[in-house]
Order: sequence, then structure tokens, then C-alpha cells
Amino acid sequence: MTKKTAMPERIEMLRALMRAKGWDAVVVLGSDPHCSEYPAERWKQVEWLSGFTGEAGDLVVTLDHAGLWTDTRYFIQAKQQLAHTGVELHKMRVPEQIPIPEWLGMALGDDALIAVDGLCAGADFTKSLPGTVISVPDLLSRFWTDRPAIPQTPVVTVDPGESRGQKLAWIRRFLEKNDCDGILLTALDEIAWMLNVRASDIEYNPLVISYLLITREDVVWYVLKQEVEDPDSRGTFELLATEGIRLLPYEDVGLLASEFQGRLYVDVSTLNYQLYDNLTAAGIPLEEGISPVGARKAVKNGEEIAGMRKAHLQDGIAMERFLYWLEKSVEAGREITEWDAAVKLGQLRADQPDYLGDSFETISAYGPGAALPHYVTPHYHAPVIRDEGLYLCDSGGQYNCGTTDITRTVPMGRCSALECEDYTLVLKGHIALAMAVFPEGTPGCRLDVLSREPLWRCKRNFGHGTGHGVGWYLGVHEGPQDIRQNLNPVPFQAGMITSDEPGIYREGLYGVRHENLLLCTGAGETEFGRWLCFETLTLCHFDTGILVRDLLSREETDWLNAYHERVYRTLSPHLPPEIAAWLRGKTQAI
Amino acid sequence: MTKKTAMPERIEMLRALMRAKGWDAVVVLGSDPHCSEYPAERWKQVEWLSGFTGEAGDLVVTLDHAGLWTDTRYFIQAKQQLAHTGVELHKMRVPEQIPIPEWLGMALGDDALIAVDGLCAGADFTKSLPGTVISVPDLLSRFWTDRPAIPQTPVVTVDPGESRGQKLAWIRRFLEKNDCDGILLTALDEIAWMLNVRASDIEYNPLVISYLLITREDVVWYVLKQEVEDPDSRGTFELLATEGIRLLPYEDVGLLASEFQGRLYVDVSTLNYQLYDNLTAAGIPLEEGISPVGARKAVKNGEEIAGMRKAHLQDGIAMERFLYWLEKSVEAGREITEWDAAVKLGQLRADQPDYLGDSFETISAYGPGAALPHYVTPHYHAPVIRDEGLYLCDSGGQYNCGTTDITRTVPMGRCSALECEDYTLVLKGHIALAMAVFPEGTPGCRLDVLSREPLWRCKRNFGHGTGHGVGWYLGVHEGPQDIRQNLNPVPFQAGMITSDEPGIYREGLYGVRHENLLLCTGAGETEFGRWLCFETLTLCHFDTGILVRDLLSREETDWLNAYHERVYRTLSPHLPPEIAAWLRGKTQAI
Repeated sequence: MTKKTAMPERIEMLRALMRAKGWDAVVVLGSDPHCSEYPAERWKQVEWLSGFTGEAGDLVVTLDHAGLWTDTRYFIQAKQQLAHTGVELHKMRVPEQIPIPEWLGMALGDDALIAVDGLCAGADFTKSLPGTVISVPDLLSRFWTDRPAIPQTPVVTVDPGESRGQKLAWIRRFLEKNDCDGILLTALDEIAWMLNVRASDIEYNPLVISYLLITREDVVWYVLKQEVEDPDSRGTFELLATEGIRLLPYEDVGLLASEFQGRLYVDVSTLNYQLYDNLTAAGIPLEEGISPVGARKAVKNGEEIAGMRKAHLQDGIAMERFLYWLEKSVEAGREITEWDAAVKLGQLRADQPDYLGDSFETISAYGPGAALPHYVTPHYHAPVIRDEGLYLCDSGGQYNCGTTDITRTVPMGRCSALECEDYTLVLKGHIALAMAVFPEGTPGCRLDVLSREPLWRCKRNFGHGTGHGVGWYLGVHEGPQDIRQNLNPVPFQAGMITSDEPGIYREGLYGVRHENLLLCTGAGETEFGRWLCFETLTLCHFDTGILVRDLLSREETDWLNAYHERVYRTLSPHLPPEIAAWLRGKTQAI
Repeated sequence: MTKKTAMPERIEMLRALMRAKGWDAVVVLGSDPHCSEYPAERWKQVEWLSGFTGEAGDLVVTLDHAGLWTDTRYFIQAKQQLAHTGVELHKMRVPEQIPIPEWLGMALGDDALIAVDGLCAGADFTKSLPGTVISVPDLLSRFWTDRPAIPQTPVVTVDPGESRGQKLAWIRRFLEKNDCDGILLTALDEIAWMLNVRASDIEYNPLVISYLLITREDVVWYVLKQEVEDPDSRGTFELLATEGIRLLPYEDVGLLASEFQGRLYVDVSTLNYQLYDNLTAAGIPLEEGISPVGARKAVKNGEEIAGMRKAHLQDGIAMERFLYWLEKSVEAGREITEWDAAVKLGQLRADQPDYLGDSFETISAYGPGAALPHYVTPHYHAPVIRDEGLYLCDSGGQYNCGTTDITRTVPMGRCSALECEDYTLVLKGHIALAMAVFPEGTPGCRLDVLSREPLWRCKRNFGHGTGHGVGWYLGVHEGPQDIRQNLNPVPFQAGMITSDEPGIYREGLYGVRHENLLLCTGAGETEFGRWLCFETLTLCHFDTGILVRDLLSREETDWLNAYHERVYRTLSPHLPPEIAAWLRGKTQAI
């Protein structure tokens, strides 16, 4: 029995429970108790129920409707995966979007009884639901008999140039300023940053599933797991204990409500509803606000920036070796599938001294697959990369000195005029953002159009954001800044890192995306104020073979030539002579 | 006694009253009972108290502080006008801004007693004040003995292609959809649009000071003034009465609270606090929301667009005659002051058949004066326009078929390298927005950067918005869309009109601004969605003499040449031969 046929049965099981309990709707969110973007297997509840594997999707089941809410990135994928499941696609990030709370209000009215797994639903979101909300922790566990356990992987410490002590002193000043007695950190990357710890509890994300309470005198880490017996974790836990950090079992966070005294600062965008409900029921005064950790973590310090440069040097070496291998292999007529290419790239990254793993699942997509911005390369029967058209590869590494994320679109041979034009327009968009100069205080949403206008002039566009923040040996997506159509008011600051990844996708044909990571940096002061700009961190050439040169301005050509010269000079000393010579050709000025 | 020395005395009179009444602060806003951007003389209370004449300024007086809140456009002017008054400048639209409510909270705490003239303070704003608020209508009248009366000017009807009946039917559908029994329109341009009436109650703004109540069966216009005896108004009032519109005295709106039955829709951004307070005290259930009139009024219909084109043809003829006269006069060594130039331009506009008056006070500024984006040309001792450097003229007309707004910066002779560069960069910014293509649903704040990035690349900027909406024979500033740094989410729609007016200002030296009006129009559909672009309405050449051609891209040059060809072909048949020949030269392709 395949997954697809199983889905409707699982939804029917859920409906039987709904009828028995008198629930009008069940809301199942694609997140975990920490509102993580990428949940561990245990919390892939939307996938288990619907078969949809996209990285963003929420499910609502009523007695006569089942709907999946996802955004533009996943429309094509959702259409395919939901076919024959009875689950309907509800489109988000489109002008006519109707978010779940509004939809429920319209469908069921204000008298509805709505069940959610409060552990896996943010307090912020759950409070916005209409009707009466019942929180049922681990709601699906009664059906999902082989549900995976909470992951536990070895925990190590890192040294990013700022000690736990310094970070704790900083956050205690924040507590003082905000008249709070404690702060409960719930976002996993914020906890990892705060304690300078890393693990691998979530694939590609070096995180430790845990909660962290910091009071004016005390630090309590809800993490200790009985079964953890590896020396790394033992060493980490002992070190933290000597610094006065108390370690308690993960589940004990539930006792916080009865034990905590005073005013507690919480960020309801990452606090789950179950915990929020416990705390408010216990009468603990909550100060709701944005966690200060996100904004501080986003601004990298000198050592983190130096580490990111080091990671990008190694990543560039792996990428150029990969692109050389790919070109030569396909030229030689060898049968390379998308999967083979992804495996080869992983091996080349693994050769780098500081590499620890990938920062997300490599998207290795030839032709039509690349039209899905978040394509998953199939392990078996993957398409073969032929000697024509476009191959797109979006990948990244976790290094012990930083995190990378790069996309290259590679012409494998003859390309259509439309492919060449799209390829060039997307590069124009990429360069426009990379060259941007802007005043201090500018949020990314105001810069987004720079990368789009070259496409818009030709009435082409892409349905995802242009740039996301990137962590230092942390999540490949982090906030609070971003560059996208949403009007996020967070301004860019020197030290922030962002991706720059415009694209064009033609369903059934191909996709183009060009992505580098950019470091925001100071650009001096004039009588008009203080200025910022971007420095490109990623080191890897763009194939110039199919560029439509007439579409490039002199400034764009100058940028490309200077970037290519830098790529060649930085990487070539670290490459075998034949690859260095090949790269010399690839980076020739146009 | 000059105004400037009088100001501190008036503030001291106010403070004596504050002490007697026990008020901790008085808030005086630069608006009228309709939250108008430009109030009539009667409501220029901020100017009367402080001497500041800028178009945007609010005053707060406490027992030991007097402060004026204004934005970047008026910093230089405020510094000059507030010198020696004891009133301090509080800067708005800067990152470190502290708006009045926050400032009062910090300065006085939550126990303060704050007096406002509730007639001249928006409900929205007043509700945001800390402490206890007392509304004292016409608070300043006890001191301001020669305070002007409420203006009353002849009222005429217009025919913009949609009848009062059609508009009333539309808004009644809105009431039905929103389960409301009535809507109270308080914004003067919305009332004028709704009733197809115009007057001149506010200088440059063809408005009738009034309130309009529309219920499901009834229309009540609170406007009738005892003294109005002119035939225009009589005719208008009789016509409206025959259509069933009831006319009541302006002041009777105060009785609404005791007479209205049912649920009333109000827009608290233009409803004054006094009226809001009356209505809520009377227990009338208010549905607070954005008035639907603004968004609909902003989208011009076919007849309004045709009228705007006609107005711009006439305006272009006047402008070209003016620029010819200016160039020839200065070349001939005649002494022309900024004031003389403004008067001449007004006369040339008045020669046009459909001209009714100016749409705002002409800014005629040579050299340093132009560094103030909202400079007021002095009537006496105005600077002489010499045969070098830059002259800036920002002006517009009210025509019975539309409204115009245009800025040209004119090189009068030799210009510095910096002047030439600034002039060229601002034109690049102007063209970038004029050429923009963008998907449906795009708000103006996402387009703003297009006109700034050419300046930003050279670390130059301007402190005002790039574009504002323009009414059809109505206010030269209207919402709800705009193009500026604020994250206003209102999307552009085909039929909306916006200015496009980037600038660079060098204090003490000169200012550059290039402004045309643009009509948003459909640009077709592709597989990536539906598209919009702009069509330039304004018809008047930009002087190409001092352009730094190396800074212009081929696309920009192409746009400029095509625009100039259109300007010449459209205007020349309507110009005297010598001016047409001169314009041929001015519009020569570069």
C-alpha cells in the first residue's frame, strides 16, 4: 500500500474521533513544540496525514472538508501530492489568500469547537483561532502507532567569539530593562546560540531540542535525557553544570508553571500554546514580546564573520570541483542522474576539513524538476542530466566555522533562446541586489524590488522571497530580517547575512536561480546619512556561456568580471592544476 | 510687533490657562475638524501659537516645554522659524523619532491631564494619548480674538462621469455588506467626490466644509450656511434637494448623536475626537474602519482620465510658455525675482480655458531656497534668478477637468559639476519609476527604491516621499496609495494617479527635483500573472543641457528621447511658432 492511498483513511480515522468528541475541526500544523521551520520526523504530522512533503504546510480537517494551506513555493508540488487524497489546496502568499483563522470563522462561525495539538501550535496562531479551542497534546499519537520518538543526538560546545557568560550578562540587562524576572527561550536556534551548544536533533539543523529559562540569578536548561550516554554530551553537560547552569529533563518544562515566581518574558511566536496555556492558567504574569535573541544573533561578530569566510572558501572549492566534474562527466557521455550529482557534491564537501554535514537537502534538478523551487531529488529513478538545457543545484554545508547556501544554474549544452534570456535576467536581478547601497534603517522589503525589476520589465517573476537570513553554524534560514514581498519592517544592520536568490520557473520546462550569500557591511557616511552595502561571501563562478550580453549593462558586466576575478584568485591556489586552468576559462572577463 | 516676538507671549497666555485649569499639557494639532492636510486660516492654530508655517506640524505645550513635531521636509524651515520662540523641534520620519503620545507618556506619565481641541484632533490620534484627555472645542478662541470664521464659498456641481445616484447606490451596497445603517463621511475630499460638488473653502483645495451622513434611505448634508446667497450655491442646493438630499446647518452634526438610530460606520482617521466622543457617549454603536470612498475615488474612471489628459495638455502649454519666457528674460538680462516668475506662471496658466486656480502655492526657488523642499517664495525682496545655477519650480493647477502638479529644475546658465551630477541622478531616479513594470497587488512602498537606488549608489538621498496620489479636480495630495519609505500596504491599481518626484537637496546651495504625474495602467497578462505600468500624464520637457550623459543608460536615454518627442508633437501645434521652434531644440534627441 502506498502512502497516497493511505492518506484518506487516516483523515477518516481522525473524523471518527472528531464525531465522538464533538469537535468541528482539527487543525494540524507543520511544526513542532518550538515552532521550528523544519520539524524532526516525530512532528511531520501534516505529511503523515496528507502525504504532502513540502517544508511549509498546515492542515485543517472538518467533517466535510480537508484543506492544506501552503505558499507559492509549493503549489505545483501540493497539486501533485494531494491528487486523489481528497485534501484541497488553499493558497497562501497570493492576494486572495484566506488564512486558516479567517477560513475557519467563515466555514464554522464563532460557536465551533476546534481541536489543536497545543504542543505543535504557536500561542500566537492559536489565540487567533475563532470559536472554542481545545488543546490536545500529541493528538495524533493515538493513531500514529509507529510515531518516532523525540530525537536525541550528541551535544557539543562551540566557541563563536562570545562566551555564554557574556551572552547571559547581556540578556539579564534586557530583563532588568524590561522589568522581568525571567525569560523563557523556546526557539531552538536561540537556545543553541545562547548556550554555545550544537547537536543534530533535527536533520541539517545543528540544534538541541530543549527549553531554556534564564532568570536574574538562575539558568535552567530543560534538556537532560536519561538515555544520553555519549561522551560529547556528558562533557558538555558537565561543563555547563560547572558554570552553574541547571539541567532538568525536557518534559519538566511543564512544571515551570507551578514553580516560577515573578514576571516572565515570552515570545508567543515560538512559544507553543500548551505551555502558554499552562503558564497563564497558573497566573504567571507574562510579558509578551519579540525575543531579543533573534535580532542579536542575526548580527554576526568578527569571529563569526571570519568563520563564514573560511566556510565559504571551503564551500567554493567543493563547488568548483563539483561543477568541473559535472561538465567533464556529461561531456564524456557518462550517465549522471540528479541523485548521482547530489551524492558527488556531498562527497566533495565532505573532503573539506571543517565540513560537518549539509545545511539542507540538496536540490539537484535537471530540466522540469528545477521548475519546483523546492524540488526533492528522487533517490531512485532520478532523471539523467543530459548535454543540453539547464541543470539547477541548490545546496549548502554546515561547517564548524559557519553555514553556506548556494545555487548555481548550469547550462549543460545547447539552450533555448528563452532559457538564455531567463538565465540572464535572473543574473541581472541577482547583481542588482548584490550592488545595492542603502541608508541605515532600510528594511529588506524595500530592497526586494531591486532583484525583481529586471524580471518585471519583461513581465516575469518568481513566487518566493529574494533573501533569507543565514545562521552561523545554525539554521540556514533565520530572521528577523529578510528580503521579500511581505512588509517586514526589520532594518538591515552591518553584520547581518542574507541570501540573494532571484529565479524564474517555467512549469514543465526548467528553472533558473542564482544564489550567493551576502554580508551586510558599512559603507561610510555622507551629508545624507550613514550607508550600508553588501559584500558577497559565496565564491563560485556563474557560467557566462549563455548570457545574452546585450541585456547586461556596463555596471553589471563590471560587477561580474570583478567577482569572477576574485573567485579565481581566491580559489585557484586550492584547486588541482587542471581545475584551476578550467576555472581560469570560466572566469574570463566578458 | 512682528509675529516672531509675539509667539512666546501666546504660549505664556496658554500656560496661564493651563495652571488655572490644572492641565499638564495642551496638544494643538495642525489640522481642522475634518483632519484635512491643509486647513483653512481659521484652523492654523500651530502657526498662530508658534509662528511655524510649514504644512505639517503639531505643537505640545507643557508647563516647562514647548515642542513642534514635524517631518524631514520642514526641518530647515522649522529651525529658522522657531529660533528665539522657545519652541523646540521634535523630528519625525527619522529612525529615532518619538511621536507625541510616546513623548507625553515619558514626559508626564499616566496621571497627566491633557487638554486638546477635540474638534481639531482626530479620534484615532486622541485615543492614543496617555493620561486623561479633556476635549475643549475651539480652545484657542479665548485668546485668538481676530480668529477667522469658518469659510464659505460658492458651491458648484461637477460631472465626472458618475452620478451622485450611482455613487450613493454603491455606498449603500457597502453599508449592507458591512451590516451598518449609516456612514458618516468626514473627510472633505470624500464628501466632494460623493456629491459631485466643489467650492473653494480651503485655498487651492476645491472643497466644501461639511459633513455627510448617508443612511440606507436618507442623505443628510451638514453644510447649509445662513449667509450663502450666491446663485451657484443656491442652484446646487436646490438641485441636490430635488434629488432628496437633506441640507442641514454645519453645526447640526452635533445633534447626530441624539438623532441617529442604528449602527454607524466611521473612519476614525478623519473623524474628529469631539464628534467621536459625542457619538460614543450617546451609545451609538460605531463600526470603525477605513472609509471605502478613498480607495474608490483614487481609481479614476474613463472620463476623469480623459479630463486629466486635457488638463495636462493645457498645463504643458502654460509650462512651456513659462520656461521660454524665463530663459529669454534672464538671457536678456532682465531682473526676474522668484516671485515675478511665480506670478508669470500663474498668468500663463490663467490663459488656459479650463483653468480655475492653482492646486497649491507655487514654489519658485532659485539656488539655496530650493534646498527647502517646501520653500515659500517671499512676496517682497524675493531673490533674483541669475544666469547660472539651478532654478526649481514646483506648481500645479486646478482645471475644471482635472488637477496637475509638476516640478522642473532649470539650469539658468553655468552649473557646477555637482549640480550637473545631482540633476542627472535625480532624472535617473525619476525615469526608473516612470518605466516600472510590476505585478498587480504591488504597493507603492515596494516601488519607492526604484527612484532612490540611482541616488543611493552615490550615497545621496531625499527626505520626502517619491509619490503621492492626486485627485480629479480635488486635492493635489490624496490617498490611499503612495510611494514612500513608510510601509503602506495599499496596492496600486489601474486608474490611480501618482506623482513621481525624487530630489536632492544641498542646504545653502540648491535643490533638484523632477516631477511628473503618472497614470497607473494595465500592462497585460503573462504566465507570471497580471501586470501594471505607468503612463506619464505631464507634458513638459526636461532640460538636457546639463545632463551627464555617461551616467545615463541606453534605456534611460531611450525613455527620455521618446518622452521628449511626445511632448513636442503634442504641445507644438498649440504654441506660437517661435516657442514651438525653441521647444524643438529643447526636445532634440540626445
